[in-house]
Amino acid sequence: MSQNQFSSGINRRALVSALAILSALPETLLPAGAQTAAAGDPLPSWNESAAKRSIIDFVAAVTKDGSRDFVPVAQRIATFDNDGTLWCEQPLPVQLVFALDRVKAMAPMHPDWKDKQPFKAVLDGDLKTLAQSGERGLVELIMATHAGMTTGEFSTIVMDWLAAAHHPRFNRRYTELVYQPMLELLAYFRASGFKTFIVSGGGIEFMRPWVEKVYGIPPEQVVGSSIKTKFEMRDGMPVLVRLAEINFNDDKAGKPVGINQYIGRRPIAAFGNSDGDLEMLQWTTLGPGGRRLGLIVHHNDAEREYAYDRNVSLGRLDKALDAAAVNKWTVVSMRDDWKRVFAFQ
Amino acid sequence: MSQNQFSSGINRRALVSALAILSALPETLLPAGAQTAAAGDPLPSWNESAAKRSIIDFVAAVTKDGSRDFVPVAQRIATFDNDGTLWCEQPLPVQLVFALDRVKAMAPMHPDWKDKQPFKAVLDGDLKTLAQSGERGLVELIMATHAGMTTGEFSTIVMDWLAAAHHPRFNRRYTELVYQPMLELLAYFRASGFKTFIVSGGGIEFMRPWVEKVYGIPPEQVVGSSIKTKFEMRDGMPVLVRLAEINFNDDKAGKPVGINQYIGRRPIAAFGNSDGDLEMLQWTTLGPGGRRLGLIVHHNDAEREYAYDRNVSLGRLDKALDAAAVNKWTVVSMRDDWKRVFAFQ
Repeated sequence: MSQNQFSSGINRRALVSALAILSALPETLLPAGAQTAAAGDPLPSWNESAAKRSIIDFVAAVTKDGSRDFVPVAQRIATFDNDGTLWCEQPLPVQLVFALDRVKAMAPMHPDWKDKQPFKAVLDGDLKTLAQSGERGLVELIMATHAGMTTGEFSTIVMDWLAAAHHPRFNRRYTELVYQPMLELLAYFRASGFKTFIVSGGGIEFMRPWVEKVYGIPPEQVVGSSIKTKFEMRDGMPVLVRLAEINFNDDKAGKPVGINQYIGRRPIAAFGNSDGDLEMLQWTTLGPGGRRLGLIVHHNDAEREYAYDRNVSLGRLDKALDAAAVNKWTVVSMRDDWKRVFAFQ
Repeated sequence: MSQNQFSSGINRRALVSALAILSALPETLLPAGAQTAAAGDPLPSWNESAAKRSIIDFVAAVTKDGSRDFVPVAQRIATFDNDGTLWCEQPLPVQLVFALDRVKAMAPMHPDWKDKQPFKAVLDGDLKTLAQSGERGLVELIMATHAGMTTGEFSTIVMDWLAAAHHPRFNRRYTELVYQPMLELLAYFRASGFKTFIVSGGGIEFMRPWVEKVYGIPPEQVVGSSIKTKFEMRDGMPVLVRLAEINFNDDKAGKPVGINQYIGRRPIAAFGNSDGDLEMLQWTTLGPGGRRLGLIVHHNDAEREYAYDRNVSLGRLDKALDAAAVNKWTVVSMRDDWKRVFAFQ
């Protein structure tokens, strides 16, 4: 998403809209789509289009020994945004839904929240007032729900929530709302010698407990936003306590910074869906020498998922769409390039 | 080392001593040691002692399918301190020698340094005055020599320096002063399905350009101290500029924080040599359940390397040595457990 939930500029009007959509959506299930897989095709959920060809041509070029574009295995680094690139980020980013649910679950231990904003708004279901609390209110919600426990405790809270929560429109667990064509692409890249990394504006510890199972990406290959932690010995046992203080904002110009800080190598392929990924795509594709792949997932499929680009705040695709044309990045039409969006379709 | 060169408490007297030693040391080369390797022995430079047995027993226990202590490959994470654990940190940490050399190399572009401390002291070879500038002076030196260029430029500077610089006593390049028994241990752990990570108080971007070649550890498996960077477009080309601002201090209680932040998994084996590694060893070995290995390299070999523990500031081994006895960590006697220290001996 273009502006992450921790500290970037959340547009109030957009938040109002998003929250309104959340409360209004019917629990719709779409009919299952075609699930054909051509033998030997690494991307069976992709239609035979220019987008698919650009991906396969790139992989062939950098993996063919002796080719002008050959890249040694150790340097095959591919980075993937998460929200909107690997899983659904509408009508609200999953981590924001988590934060709202956590406020409700924690309310009995915080009687003062009944009269204190932005908590009161969450508990009253008063989404308009919540949205009016703006970015400051959002950060307050995140800190109240994401800090104050150990890292182990937080991981358990996330997993318990993901096991129970369901998407308001698709009535599926959020971990089922991952894009089947992107799962195939991840597997294809790994089979071609790539190390696949997540580079997300979302919270690093919100993702790590489940991404290995869902995406095949291990925790040590996740880059994300974070709050600070503190080492403590408690009754002879070491713990890391999560503090209500921002450590790193892995969005926009923070993405190349995070890539360099965590990975220490420049990717040769990067995948995103919004202006939050612009700098990552620039850092990946505009460096000196060698063939590179930049790819943008364009959400233009209101029927099977959602349609949004320049018209939203959270997840806006505007500058990066213009840059894609200039820099010859692959723009994937969700509607036209994907046979199905989710595995259950 | 116990107090890293960026921001921890550098003891002035110890720095004076260290700098004095640096200037006084003769260029001595020790006679080459025995280089025998038993067939099939993964640790040929280790004597057949309790230390070696504890390592091999641990690896056997966690890798044997069906064993009570079996650990799946994905969870086999081993973390290694660098200075004093993988390479020589005496008489001065290598990165500090680099900083002093850089001041001399950069001086022609900074005429004001002739009259400005702590630069004047470095240029005059006045090590006593330099030491008196304390931690503040040291940070100033680090920022002047490590910031203000792009990440790519810094990497080139580091590699050019390492290609030319020689250790004052051994008259070898610093990358030759890595411990042969630890190189064997790294290879042994990787062959046993472990991912090996560096977790060092030293600068992450000072290590990344060379650790893959020297240790077989890729840049994305290096955790270290860092300064902040900033993304910029320069004439249509993206760069990351290194800023004179501390980002993260990966030492002492910072090591578990860094491990969690970068790796996101708890190691099952950790290797250090000083009090700077105490919390990493606690975090690794005192968690809930399962067999763990904590190991400390004890520098007690003045003849082949150096002898120091409780008696120094930089690289002090005191609390961690006491904790080793309590927690049953393996303490490696450099003198008695290693057949040779360096490959050239």
